[in-house]
Amino acid sequence: MKEQFLEDYAVGQTYMSGKKRVAKDEIVAFAKEFDPQFYHLDEVAARESPFKGLAASGWHTAAMTMRLLVDGAFKPAGGILGVGFDQLSWPRPVRPGDELRVKSEILEVRPSKSKPDRGMIRVQNTTFNQNDEVVMMFTGNLLVPRRAPAS
Amino acid sequence: MKEQFLEDYAVGQTYMSGKKRVAKDEIVAFAKEFDPQFYHLDEVAARESPFKGLAASGWHTAAMTMRLLVDGAFKPAGGILGVGFDQLSWPRPVRPGDELRVKSEILEVRPSKSKPDRGMIRVQNTTFNQNDEVVMMFTGNLLVPRRAPAS
Repeated sequence: MKEQFLEDYAVGQTYMSGKKRVAKDEIVAFAKEFDPQFYHLDEVAARESPFKGLAASGWHTAAMTMRLLVDGAFKPAGGILGVGFDQLSWPRPVRPGDELRVKSEILEVRPSKSKPDRGMIRVQNTTFNQNDEVVMMFTGNLLVPRRAPAS
Repeated sequence: MKEQFLEDYAVGQTYMSGKKRVAKDEIVAFAKEFDPQFYHLDEVAARESPFKGLAASGWHTAAMTMRLLVDGAFKPAGGILGVGFDQLSWPRPVRPGDELRVKSEILEVRPSKSKPDRGMIRVQNTTFNQNDEVVMMFTGNLLVPRRAPAS
């Protein structure tokens, strides 16, 4: 899949990532390092939590989503360069054994007014589990280069 | 530091985390697993990127921020349970050797209308480097339990 420039994007385009199966060990390892709260660490204790079972840290879900994006067909030239996001939510927990995939939809394409070599795209990323349930959703603004003009 | 309930929070309260020094190896290890783009992996190649040098993945910054929060003085009873965030931004890259800390400020305290045992707080989290520059900022909505009524 070739790299994409600002000119290659149009509102309504969608890109689908590959799949990622989430192992219990990965959930626990991430939590130990970055989010050591009992409902991400201990399967038995987690049953008494609001998650009612072991759940991946939301930031782990975000990190796995990023990996799916980087490996997927959505390939802005120069990389996936997020300058910020909004409306990030985790409507459902990610469980051991879940299989994730990410859909990216282009919401807006906007050339820079001051810099002729780049622009911004607004992308909605939705992460699904194997039952087509949404586990994470966020809208991001990405910096994308324009094609160099023919000389 | 004791766990806090909804009744313990008031608009304007701030909490400061401890500090976390970011090693180059950690930046590269996180990127290899979750965000394998050259400006997070290769110090030399990264000089030619928009970051102009090796930079931590924004999701790594988010994960380190979460760890600082979990280890810090901001301790909602039952855990830091984010249901979603908005206005997440990374105004500056995190570099090898940076020392991070997080300030949490309570923006809103709202008892649940339907569930008397809980409420929501709205918290602005700002991650600073050692030069007091903001490297990440997000506003989150957290679920917090109320104290059980005296019986």
